[in-house]
Amino acid sequence: MPRSHEPAAGDTRCSIGRTLQILGDRWSLLILREALNGETRFSEFRDRLQIASDVLTQRLGVLIEGGVMEKRPYREAGSRSRMAYHLTAAGRELVVIFGALQQWGDQHCPHPDGPLVRRGSRTSGRSLRVAFVDEDGREAPVDDVDLGAPLRHGSARPVA
Amino acid sequence: MPRSHEPAAGDTRCSIGRTLQILGDRWSLLILREALNGETRFSEFRDRLQIASDVLTQRLGVLIEGGVMEKRPYREAGSRSRMAYHLTAAGRELVVIFGALQQWGDQHCPHPDGPLVRRGSRTSGRSLRVAFVDEDGREAPVDDVDLGAPLRHGSARPVA
Repeated sequence: MPRSHEPAAGDTRCSIGRTLQILGDRWSLLILREALNGETRFSEFRDRLQIASDVLTQRLGVLIEGGVMEKRPYREAGSRSRMAYHLTAAGRELVVIFGALQQWGDQHCPHPDGPLVRRGSRTSGRSLRVAFVDEDGREAPVDDVDLGAPLRHGSARPVA
Repeated sequence: MPRSHEPAAGDTRCSIGRTLQILGDRWSLLILREALNGETRFSEFRDRLQIASDVLTQRLGVLIEGGVMEKRPYREAGSRSRMAYHLTAAGRELVVIFGALQQWGDQHCPHPDGPLVRRGSRTSGRSLRVAFVDEDGREAPVDDVDLGAPLRHGSARPVA
């Protein structure tokens, strides 16, 4: 089999591989970051990211196809109806991935002026970390984590 | 300013943007997935991912430059010395990001035959989830999380 310059599309037995088929590339991830910040409009995504319209259209299509965003019409007074782009429930759960990306960047490639924002609870205002926890909510240190642990070892059923 | 077909390299005030400059693309993420699974050799990365050698060399260079991997020589009996590619301490902490990618894939794009593996503790064997926790280890639901919370609100100092 010839070696490839593009990752194989069929890497489907691995959950990480399947997730990356949807998140795909840096543009898609940056679009999702803006969506998690509350942006919904084509022009907002385009202006904030300085992304070419054709690239933005294509990436939004992939994100809709992948079930993480959906189109909803909106209309401002005096304007024609337009489409807004909202996260689905599955899309909103991507916040765990983006929280982990943000936390790693804060720790391992910090900006000289420090972070601009932090991860916080909307209800309590308390700062939040992303961490591994077991069924009883006990935290496991990262060096103790095996992403490839065999199924059913120490657990009645596989983690969904 | 013209719209771009490539994300701006200078998006440095955002920790997510800085992290994505290193993780970059799907190949880099797949290489890191293999590294977190314990692979260290060029030929193993190449064969498992079916990646072209020139692309693998380039991506490994970016990961070394970004401080998440490092080269170490090794030598097998009867062979010449070769280079192995190991995760740095910062690279090993990427497991939080990959755990979040895996968990999201398990939940939102499951394989019909179920997951192959699970996230588990090496010491206790217990299953692990990736979650947001506060300073007291209390878990926050994803809908309560704000990745863009203002600094110093409800916290004596910004999260590092």
